Amino acid sequence: MAEHSITVESTLSALLAGKKYSTIKDILVTMNPADVAALFEELEEDRLPLLFRLLPKEQAAETFVEMEPELQEMLIRGFSDSELREVVDELYVDDAVDLVEEMPANVVRRILEQADPEMRKQINEILRYPENSAGSIMTTEYVSLRPNMTVEEAITRIRRTGVDKETIYTCYVTKDRNLLGFVSVKDLLLAQDDDTPVSEIMDTNVISVNTHADQEEVARMLSKYNFLALPVVDSEDRMVGIITFDDAMDVMEDEATEDIEIMAGMTPSDKTYLRSTPFDLFTHRIPWLLLLMVSATFTGLIITRFENALAQLVVLTAFIPMLMDTGGNSGSQSSVTIIRALSLGELEFSDLPQVIWKEIRTAVLCGVALAGACFAKVMLVDRLLFGNTDVTLPVAAVVCATMALTIFVAKCVGCTLPMLAKKLGFDPAVMASPFITTIVDALSLLIYFGIASAVLF
Amino acid sequence: MAEHSITVESTLSALLAGKKYSTIKDILVTMNPADVAALFEELEEDRLPLLFRLLPKEQAAETFVEMEPELQEMLIRGFSDSELREVVDELYVDDAVDLVEEMPANVVRRILEQADPEMRKQINEILRYPENSAGSIMTTEYVSLRPNMTVEEAITRIRRTGVDKETIYTCYVTKDRNLLGFVSVKDLLLAQDDDTPVSEIMDTNVISVNTHADQEEVARMLSKYNFLALPVVDSEDRMVGIITFDDAMDVMEDEATEDIEIMAGMTPSDKTYLRSTPFDLFTHRIPWLLLLMVSATFTGLIITRFENALAQLVVLTAFIPMLMDTGGNSGSQSSVTIIRALSLGELEFSDLPQVIWKEIRTAVLCGVALAGACFAKVMLVDRLLFGNTDVTLPVAAVVCATMALTIFVAKCVGCTLPMLAKKLGFDPAVMASPFITTIVDALSLLIYFGIASAVLF
Repeated sequence: MAEHSITVESTLSALLAGKKYSTIKDILVTMNPADVAALFEELEEDRLPLLFRLLPKEQAAETFVEMEPELQEMLIRGFSDSELREVVDELYVDDAVDLVEEMPANVVRRILEQADPEMRKQINEILRYPENSAGSIMTTEYVSLRPNMTVEEAITRIRRTGVDKETIYTCYVTKDRNLLGFVSVKDLLLAQDDDTPVSEIMDTNVISVNTHADQEEVARMLSKYNFLALPVVDSEDRMVGIITFDDAMDVMEDEATEDIEIMAGMTPSDKTYLRSTPFDLFTHRIPWLLLLMVSATFTGLIITRFENALAQLVVLTAFIPMLMDTGGNSGSQSSVTIIRALSLGELEFSDLPQVIWKEIRTAVLCGVALAGACFAKVMLVDRLLFGNTDVTLPVAAVVCATMALTIFVAKCVGCTLPMLAKKLGFDPAVMASPFITTIVDALSLLIYFGIASAVLF
Repeated sequence: MAEHSITVESTLSALLAGKKYSTIKDILVTMNPADVAALFEELEEDRLPLLFRLLPKEQAAETFVEMEPELQEMLIRGFSDSELREVVDELYVDDAVDLVEEMPANVVRRILEQADPEMRKQINEILRYPENSAGSIMTTEYVSLRPNMTVEEAITRIRRTGVDKETIYTCYVTKDRNLLGFVSVKDLLLAQDDDTPVSEIMDTNVISVNTHADQEEVARMLSKYNFLALPVVDSEDRMVGIITFDDAMDVMEDEATEDIEIMAGMTPSDKTYLRSTPFDLFTHRIPWLLLLMVSATFTGLIITRFENALAQLVVLTAFIPMLMDTGGNSGSQSSVTIIRALSLGELEFSDLPQVIWKEIRTAVLCGVALAGACFAKVMLVDRLLFGNTDVTLPVAAVVCATMALTIFVAKCVGCTLPMLAKKLGFDPAVMASPFITTIVDALSLLIYFGIASAVLF
């Protein structure tokens, strides 16, 4: 897609230079708003207001929604009040809320001034919900039907009011704002008899979420049930909005990115990589690096404690990186598997005994296999091939025993910590590689020197 | 949700014991198929065929689709031919394909025998496409319209044929199987005049994918454009099927899981954690553990090479874990950030110079900050607090210089390798923590001993 944009980009630059505005307009109207927005990001900023004004009203609003906040702000600052009103009028409420959340206060004031009173009220309502809650990502524009409407009346109502709704395909049947059921446009269109009341064909097994539900939970439910939209109800079970599948997709993508960032020892960022400055990256990366560096004091202390033993048998030092890395890798395999299963809702805290038992058996298999391979490698490669005569049979035995035991401990720690974190209300993703590695490093050194002291000295 | 299932489960068990089948049926029909399937997973297997037969035909098929392959196989083996035909008849083609892909050969033969000839043909067609391609996950059941139909004729056609279609909400306008445009049911319902030809209101700016496109690319496009469905065309641009948003959501989830597993040094698995045996987990985890253990030979060799220096100044050993871990963490921060950006399509290989320049500046910031903190920590904690007099000013200087340089190298390696992997056609996720850690370990030791030799000996 990027290559395609670049070609259009150069064509457009040429047309702009030649002031061929009507040709430019003809090209832009054939393009999807997401692609127009991507194209605008590539162009010089001073051309933007001109190009944006070439777009028809609806496409302009849809393109605007797809742009990065920096460009949106730049455009708004150049808009007259009536231009701003035109764009805001075309926005869906949830997109307007996203915009208001991103813009600085003085721009927000202008946006709210230009929104019509009904939209302003809805924006303010949604803004009251906590970040990442179902309420904060819902839209209040859905089709509601009455239970006593006939199929024909329902279709007429959809035709009359549907143009402003985020989705018309799932309609909600309410009475006094209480959600009684839902009916799809497919059900309405395929109904045998136009006079059937909606209450007869509606599905009363309604699955809804509370305004305070976590957005990740909402995305998971939409994906599980394959729904186009999920109704959102308040604490008194009154319907207040819907969340559509496209917002759920964005949430899924963002949450996976966030988990991956946290698992790699970074604080999560909203900006894309290319838009992050080195200082942004620095601030997201330095906290964990500092914390982990300081916590490495323990490994240093352990080694210092056994300095005399190491001075006597320096060859032991050569195996420290291998033992630490294998322990770290084994532990993070377990922790990452558990973190992902937790975040997909496949595991609960009550599964802990089953998880530990499974990891123990896996650890035994991995431990035995790796210790065997390690023994062969140490004796054949390190001793025979490289002729290191310090690598004696007892040394090899100590290394392999340490490896097996480290893997065992690493897998137990790796599966337990994420589940404990979840239970205690922390994000399990914190318990991934960097954290586990630091703990397992210290443990593996203790095991190593413990076994070495017993066997070799 | 799980707690809810457990309550229903115990109620159901009691009702089963009392043979209250009609009450059980009344409960089941109010439930969403995904929830019924989850409930069936929890029950004893011998109760299943009985319970399954209580479900109405359509709900039975929908529940069947949501079950794990093991249960599906068990049920099919118990089905009579006519029972199997009833279920297969209700399946959408893409679900039937999924089923055929999961079942053993003799079960597949029975399924294909019971499928009607048209469906059998479509299943076989889809099975020919490579795994993870757009063709392999599409469905051939979509609504196609002719350009000269009026809005009224189009709606009539949807009403007549829509019941068997995966989605009716986006309809595709074709002529001689060539895709001319698309029109949504919303456009049709909101059209001012029922006699308008479809060709006048259809959107001709069609975005489609080829049958051989990667499923990840398809999911990304659906998410980018917020489409309900994306048309799939063959190499001669003839329309062959559609991919709907719900399948794209599953793909997004699976691909994120796969990336996370590979990044943690595991070969990806299709099974959920609770369904994996310890031996499954072992086979997915052992290859990388073995490879990484063997590659640690290099770190061992480097240490052996500098054994005499270490014997003279054993205090240097105490800082090895901290230096290696900090290097590994810095490198994996960069690699994971780049891997995720690549997998979301935010970066291309041509961005490499920009990426390296950004990482270099970030590395300088992180390196200076960490080296400063490290110097303070080494002098205050290790020397003053723990009274380790071996930790002299030159030793601290060597450690901090190594740290700064290691971070620099780690970030450069961490950002370059995933992009090179992508360019060479490998999965960039392979270049995550475990791999980067192993490389950076060796590099950090070389830097450490190099600087130490120059300054201290």
